[in-house]
Amino acid sequence: MADFDYITMDAATPSSSGPQPPKDLSHLYSRVTKQRVQSKVKDFYKYFAIPGIGNLAGGLPNASYFPYETLEAQVARADRFTPSSDDSSEGEIKKASITKKPSASSASAHITVPHASSITDPLRKIDLTTALQYGTAQGYPALYSFLRQFARENLHPNVPYLGGPDIILTNGSTDGLAKCLECLSNVWSEEKDWIREREGLLCEEFAYMNAVQGAAPRGLQAVPVKIDLDGMLTTGPGGLEDVLANWDESKGKRPHLMYTVTMGQNPTSSLLSVQRRKDIYALCSKYDVIIIEDDPYWYLQFPSAASHEAAARGLSAARVPEPHVMEKTTGFDYLDSLVPSFLNFDPDGRVLRLDTFSKTVAPGCRLGWITGQPAIIERLLRITETSTQQPSGFVQSMIAGLVMGPQPHVKALPKNKAEAMSFNGWQVSGWVRWLEGLRGEYERRMTRMCTALEAGRFQLKQQTPTKQADNDWAVISKTEMYEFDWPRAGMFVWVHMFFNTHPLFNELGQDGPLLARNLWIFLTTSPYKCLVTPGGAFSPTPAIAAEKGWQYFRLCFAAVDDDTVTMFSERFAQGVSAFWKIKDRKEFEAIDPPEDLDVNNLEGDMADLGFAWAC
Amino acid sequence: MADFDYITMDAATPSSSGPQPPKDLSHLYSRVTKQRVQSKVKDFYKYFAIPGIGNLAGGLPNASYFPYETLEAQVARADRFTPSSDDSSEGEIKKASITKKPSASSASAHITVPHASSITDPLRKIDLTTALQYGTAQGYPALYSFLRQFARENLHPNVPYLGGPDIILTNGSTDGLAKCLECLSNVWSEEKDWIREREGLLCEEFAYMNAVQGAAPRGLQAVPVKIDLDGMLTTGPGGLEDVLANWDESKGKRPHLMYTVTMGQNPTSSLLSVQRRKDIYALCSKYDVIIIEDDPYWYLQFPSAASHEAAARGLSAARVPEPHVMEKTTGFDYLDSLVPSFLNFDPDGRVLRLDTFSKTVAPGCRLGWITGQPAIIERLLRITETSTQQPSGFVQSMIAGLVMGPQPHVKALPKNKAEAMSFNGWQVSGWVRWLEGLRGEYERRMTRMCTALEAGRFQLKQQTPTKQADNDWAVISKTEMYEFDWPRAGMFVWVHMFFNTHPLFNELGQDGPLLARNLWIFLTTSPYKCLVTPGGAFSPTPAIAAEKGWQYFRLCFAAVDDDTVTMFSERFAQGVSAFWKIKDRKEFEAIDPPEDLDVNNLEGDMADLGFAWAC
Repeated sequence: MADFDYITMDAATPSSSGPQPPKDLSHLYSRVTKQRVQSKVKDFYKYFAIPGIGNLAGGLPNASYFPYETLEAQVARADRFTPSSDDSSEGEIKKASITKKPSASSASAHITVPHASSITDPLRKIDLTTALQYGTAQGYPALYSFLRQFARENLHPNVPYLGGPDIILTNGSTDGLAKCLECLSNVWSEEKDWIREREGLLCEEFAYMNAVQGAAPRGLQAVPVKIDLDGMLTTGPGGLEDVLANWDESKGKRPHLMYTVTMGQNPTSSLLSVQRRKDIYALCSKYDVIIIEDDPYWYLQFPSAASHEAAARGLSAARVPEPHVMEKTTGFDYLDSLVPSFLNFDPDGRVLRLDTFSKTVAPGCRLGWITGQPAIIERLLRITETSTQQPSGFVQSMIAGLVMGPQPHVKALPKNKAEAMSFNGWQVSGWVRWLEGLRGEYERRMTRMCTALEAGRFQLKQQTPTKQADNDWAVISKTEMYEFDWPRAGMFVWVHMFFNTHPLFNELGQDGPLLARNLWIFLTTSPYKCLVTPGGAFSPTPAIAAEKGWQYFRLCFAAVDDDTVTMFSERFAQGVSAFWKIKDRKEFEAIDPPEDLDVNNLEGDMADLGFAWAC
Repeated sequence: MADFDYITMDAATPSSSGPQPPKDLSHLYSRVTKQRVQSKVKDFYKYFAIPGIGNLAGGLPNASYFPYETLEAQVARADRFTPSSDDSSEGEIKKASITKKPSASSASAHITVPHASSITDPLRKIDLTTALQYGTAQGYPALYSFLRQFARENLHPNVPYLGGPDIILTNGSTDGLAKCLECLSNVWSEEKDWIREREGLLCEEFAYMNAVQGAAPRGLQAVPVKIDLDGMLTTGPGGLEDVLANWDESKGKRPHLMYTVTMGQNPTSSLLSVQRRKDIYALCSKYDVIIIEDDPYWYLQFPSAASHEAAARGLSAARVPEPHVMEKTTGFDYLDSLVPSFLNFDPDGRVLRLDTFSKTVAPGCRLGWITGQPAIIERLLRITETSTQQPSGFVQSMIAGLVMGPQPHVKALPKNKAEAMSFNGWQVSGWVRWLEGLRGEYERRMTRMCTALEAGRFQLKQQTPTKQADNDWAVISKTEMYEFDWPRAGMFVWVHMFFNTHPLFNELGQDGPLLARNLWIFLTTSPYKCLVTPGGAFSPTPAIAAEKGWQYFRLCFAAVDDDTVTMFSERFAQGVSAFWKIKDRKEFEAIDPPEDLDVNNLEGDMADLGFAWAC
């Protein structure tokens, strides 16, 4: 019942010309990880398989005592949402593409996970007798095998090392990252250890701080790398090569770990191109760095963003991402069109990819998986056995039921049976279709938000005409209050505020952070009532927060209701515009938060704001 | 949306005569735990509460994109199983008490967790919009508040420190223990650290090894304490005082952590009495030890065990546990009758108790909670935020629905509505009734197993009468092959084998471990086909495994089907009896495992056998 052998590693023998096995990277394991012994219990599971054996050994409760007879759900059909339209490359925003389309299918289906399924194949069996019992740390067999095949054949068919990757299920990507850090980093503390022993975590200059902060108590220092719209820079000052090649050992060990969100990066929405991936990978290989690729937004790559951006700004040429062609197809045009994971450029086996159901199904699933070379996955399995053991069987069986369809019951339940049998589960193609529908939804939201923000970027003001001037014309001044890129992926618009264009900038002693603080509060007041995330919340170091974190706001177009994206985006723009009209210092200083809100030390808090609960 | 303030700590002021606050034990936190900063994000949640605010800040997906419209289940009524009968003190095993009684109620009810509930109180709201969204690390508000109140008022109403304990939900007790170890122990490795820095974990002489092994990679050394039927010994050689008072610093630091299963200990089924608790606690307080009490079997305390044991053995007096009287009642006779947790004798706040749904609902829940003083619970909350974040919303909402009843929907679903409304959830009284029913089931199983084992303890053999003897009488020799205590709690019978009474003992060079190995294999062969756990699997140190681990088998009466407990218990006794009849060395050496089973190094494996997947 534990680590099962149903799926054996492809035991191909390496040839000199063909794919080579992944590198042995065990020298990068933490001391704790090296001390983990491989469980020998596996040898004993054979005994459990003796026909008719009476198991007085395992300390398991009997399934007849579980109070759940079924788990059931009403679920969406895979085609509920409309994919992105094909007109994305035409360079203009069609009305249809920003209006919410009616659902392609509002119908739903009923799924039932029975107490006992009559299926005997453990890779297809989904029932409560198995799902609610102690299980295997790598994942519930049916779901594990589905996801493993999906990862190997559909998501990442071009992994170059021999035998390909394995997966292990996690309790979401925060859990997955915690396990990767446990596996690959040593705890360091100032009071006890030498500074030269301190390990580091490479990350983007603006990063998802829940991840970076999660590493901080272990003593890992965040090592930011400069970024642009395509992700981490490899060259130039502050780029990856600069950071690694010119590492100052007096600050600690040269980092051997990188944490990166490569598709719709949080918060900047950058999309790491294929060429940039190859460049970063080459440096990581040279400097022996393991890449932890956290990609909750991989399926949200927006083909229309570049052309819509160009159209909105009257530019003749859109900054279109380079096309990529991989050797093997994913089997789906949509997946083929997505920039592929680092895994596909990883002969060494130094990439660990985190996937999650948080954004594709729901955050409350607390379910995801890690993909990587089998030897490291085995170490993560050992860590899992003595911590989370396995994700909850409730969510594992319900997700398995959704994608794999209904089960023939041992004792068929009359209720809903006909209905259940009419639904065969999403299967792989339905899963891909669901993702494509979600991409369509989010892409239209993105377009709505960006359209509204675009309209409010500039403050236009008619100069007071001089007396002698002809009243038929006037001078219009145009002040740029902020800029942003239309996100090529993800859930966020990363807005760069130009506080130096505010009329009070000089009078306030060029105190940008003060302007940022007051604008943030001002936006929460009537009639704007718009809450955004200050850029300081994504600054891996205090220096970055102080230097430029305050210049940014992150706006998320995912959380609010569909029909309010435009309204709140317009309110943001209106609020900024009204704030830029404040010319009187007293009026500025009178900006107060709504009553009962304590904003003492708000600047400090704004920099710390981690939104620990949100990805 | 994160750590919420709905339930505030009882902010009572200490008086010199009344309860005092728990002690500050932060000097026992690990270095990593000390480095965790308190999240300041809490101050910002107020902004989310501004009426009509547009949340463009949080990176959450919108609930309308969740593919689940409902979660539903068919669940047992709380009175499905029959409690233990009241005749337990009469000193004889009534037929009725070992025969499976018909279920009191085979009826089940349907529960539905709707997409959106119309309830506004977050402590009573159970819907997918909240349960499948990012949530609070301490637990889903409805379930957290239910469990917190249950823990404080019904399970442990006598916690002596001011304000009482708090709780945090876990992903099961293995996860809970891992978090406690992360919170309270420092990583140590031989290659890097001084031996004097090595920390230790006090545990029972025979212990649940998945827990102890989980601590091993961190460098914690297991420090066993001698035990008897009542649990850890406090006095005498190898008892707790001896271990702590005479600690040899050259082996590491004196342990500041204890891991203990106090009710139905795994594997010995010992039940720690109230007096022994007080004695152990006094020593832990004196030597500043934190007690991690892991009690999955607390509700399985068997009042009939002592009298049935006495009756089966013809003893005049049963070893009945001392009665206990606590100041405050739990509100339920059944709960009042259970030996109370260490928490009730803990003025210092040095007890962390692990509870789990694994044995009361199902292991696959991966759901439990930790109870302890608020300051330590807060540290565990910080650890949770950067690892598991929260248990899966699937299981949290489904358990909440089971105990708290159906929700009025925003958009009422016609189907099942009438049915759902007829079921009001188990509530506290139903939950207690369910536990009492389970206790009845397991107590009857225990009685059946022990009755069968009792019948086979001795080998009776008629001596060959000498020729001159009168054939009317014969000498009967009685060989005791094993002994055991009828478990006062838990799921296991801990059988002490007397291999020195085996006819081949001397011929085999008094090689007890060899006899144990071959008996273990012999039992798996036809016609016995009975799998038991070798005692070496529960030996915290190689020395204990070598000295006496091989003398024990653990038999679990929980896992097999109800109607086969007696059959497999009898087969065990028959197998042992047949094994004791083997007088020929060649026959002994011919004992082979079933085909295709590799038992190389079986002894080693037997000692390692951790059953990582089972409690």
